[in-house]
Amino acid sequence: MAENRGIVYLVGAGPGDPGLLTRRGEALLKVADVVVYDHLASSRLLDLAPKSARLICAGKSIGHNTMPQGAINELLAEQAKAGRTVVRLKGGDPYVFGRGAEEAEYLRDSGVAFQVVPGVTAAVGVTAYAGVPVTHRDASSAVAFVTGHNDPDASSAHGRLDWAALASFPGTLVIYMGVTRLESICRTLVRLGKPATTPAALVEAGTLPQQRTVSGTLADLHGRVADAGLGPPALLVIGEVVTRRPALCWFENLPLFGQRIVVTRPVGEAESSAATLESLGAEVLIAPTVEIRPLESYEELDRTIGRLAEFRWLVFTSANGVAGFLERLDVLGRDVRALGHLKLAAIGPATAGALGRFHLKADLVPRSFPVGGSGRGAWA
Amino acid sequence: MAENRGIVYLVGAGPGDPGLLTRRGEALLKVADVVVYDHLASSRLLDLAPKSARLICAGKSIGHNTMPQGAINELLAEQAKAGRTVVRLKGGDPYVFGRGAEEAEYLRDSGVAFQVVPGVTAAVGVTAYAGVPVTHRDASSAVAFVTGHNDPDASSAHGRLDWAALASFPGTLVIYMGVTRLESICRTLVRLGKPATTPAALVEAGTLPQQRTVSGTLADLHGRVADAGLGPPALLVIGEVVTRRPALCWFENLPLFGQRIVVTRPVGEAESSAATLESLGAEVLIAPTVEIRPLESYEELDRTIGRLAEFRWLVFTSANGVAGFLERLDVLGRDVRALGHLKLAAIGPATAGALGRFHLKADLVPRSFPVGGSGRGAWA
Repeated sequence: MAENRGIVYLVGAGPGDPGLLTRRGEALLKVADVVVYDHLASSRLLDLAPKSARLICAGKSIGHNTMPQGAINELLAEQAKAGRTVVRLKGGDPYVFGRGAEEAEYLRDSGVAFQVVPGVTAAVGVTAYAGVPVTHRDASSAVAFVTGHNDPDASSAHGRLDWAALASFPGTLVIYMGVTRLESICRTLVRLGKPATTPAALVEAGTLPQQRTVSGTLADLHGRVADAGLGPPALLVIGEVVTRRPALCWFENLPLFGQRIVVTRPVGEAESSAATLESLGAEVLIAPTVEIRPLESYEELDRTIGRLAEFRWLVFTSANGVAGFLERLDVLGRDVRALGHLKLAAIGPATAGALGRFHLKADLVPRSFPVGGSGRGAWA
Repeated sequence: MAENRGIVYLVGAGPGDPGLLTRRGEALLKVADVVVYDHLASSRLLDLAPKSARLICAGKSIGHNTMPQGAINELLAEQAKAGRTVVRLKGGDPYVFGRGAEEAEYLRDSGVAFQVVPGVTAAVGVTAYAGVPVTHRDASSAVAFVTGHNDPDASSAHGRLDWAALASFPGTLVIYMGVTRLESICRTLVRLGKPATTPAALVEAGTLPQQRTVSGTLADLHGRVADAGLGPPALLVIGEVVTRRPALCWFENLPLFGQRIVVTRPVGEAESSAATLESLGAEVLIAPTVEIRPLESYEELDRTIGRLAEFRWLVFTSANGVAGFLERLDVLGRDVRALGHLKLAAIGPATAGALGRFHLKADLVPRSFPVGGSGRGAWA
């Protein structure tokens, strides 16, 4: 470990809503050289990584497992041994059904430094967004998480789990990836003694704008889910606490829940609009119809900057124009002192605000102005 | 709800490490009018709230409960009904033994809008920092959370939990607040059939720099914990996965783990140093010995700014001096164009960098310079 500074961070991405990533997870993504991710509920998290970061999909999605676990382990160790900062981004929490323990043990055995950044696991995050508190002073003082990969029809190798003990568990049961075996799980629990009237709910795409929830009992949930056509990824929650959902279902009742909204602002400006809309429950697609990019040729701008002494007014038409112009001054080895003799105008208060951030005061901001702008300064 | 815009956000603060707060929790804290918090593992989170925010301690700590739950419920509703944005910051996750469900139900019944921001619960976060994966493909395919407030000595009203069913739970058991009843819990589980050799560990102050862990078995953990003198807040984890700890114990092996380091830089500059040291495991106390504050009188500075035309050089001695000088230009209704005729010098590259952020280029940066600075510009 001493001969290199490479490290692997096993980071929990949370259940889907990109706001449920931790601050530490975000900080590490922002400095990652390499991000190895599963099929995540939200690809928005990958945008946090530097543009220079290498993004590698380990390809675990429902029913697919394109990269075997052994290959993922080797990839992580190899990238860290090359001195890189590796973020292994895993859905939910790395140690809750995430095979994170296997990855950590492999890294340890390979002499590679690692750290774990826990995340909001689906059993906690998805249930809260579905209006189901997993514990409740009056209804449940214990909660258990199980994976539906443990087939209760005992023929499978994963069927070793003691479902009779689960049926008598004195609290809420949350079953990950339970939709494909939903009927078998509900039937088995009833056969082993759990009342058929026990409330249960299935949540598809929990914490995401596409979230759908179907409630019922162990006896009828399977039929209701089939009628509604719910599929993976889904979480099954079983217990009295499910009856609290009608009162506590805040997320699916948000004013824009279920609405799909396209934000056409340029990248870098769209995120704040998106965050506001998402906090109202909307599904936001960022599809920039305007792109802010460098000029193809700076010849004319540079010539004009060289002749600034001849002008009396400098008019900025947009905040991007302010940024672009000032950055060009840097490139040319000049600075804002070159504007010492000029009067400044700004088209619109946002443009004036952009000047203000550089301690430049617009001498003129017209009260009415056309929408849009060329993205560069104009001179008069 | 329509007549006001007040809202309560039930936000999980995570298990202690302030980096384990979610991004959404952070964003909401930053815009909160009121923060109602329990005794949190880290008070650092409260620094995220605006200076104008009202911080109210609801006072739940171990053994104390200074504000009754009913009073907390009323406080939240009342603040929101006054149109305020209220963050109810709860340790761990609001719905995992946090009485968040009661608060949400009260708000709902009072016609107050609420949202839930799930958090990393202690059973997930603390175990990961202690090197214990709660699930493991080879060792545990289920995990249950219980609170130690459920006294297994059935005389108490909370003793209604079915400990026999817990003793046969087919996976890892995590018990919150289990230290005061540790002996009773371990003894009961063994009496009800769990092998006395089952590995178990108690983690005190998990995810914090003061974290301490004691491992053993159901038979001997109580004695070991008593010897080590561990106390609340603590989390008890029981199961085969505890044996993985020696290999996976990354946090307590960090190079600065257990070191207490005082950072004396001014507020606003100390945080980045603190974050670096904390990522190496140190406990950081921020105790500023230097305070950056406005001048008591701006008379002399204002007079000098009024006479800038008479000077040829402007010398900045610190980044704070750059910021203070430029802000004073704003106050006086001037801007950086007033520097058009001046040469600029910066004492040190950080000061030059501060100028550069405002597109001002230092004409002179001396190669050697005295440490420190007056915090304001000097003229020659």
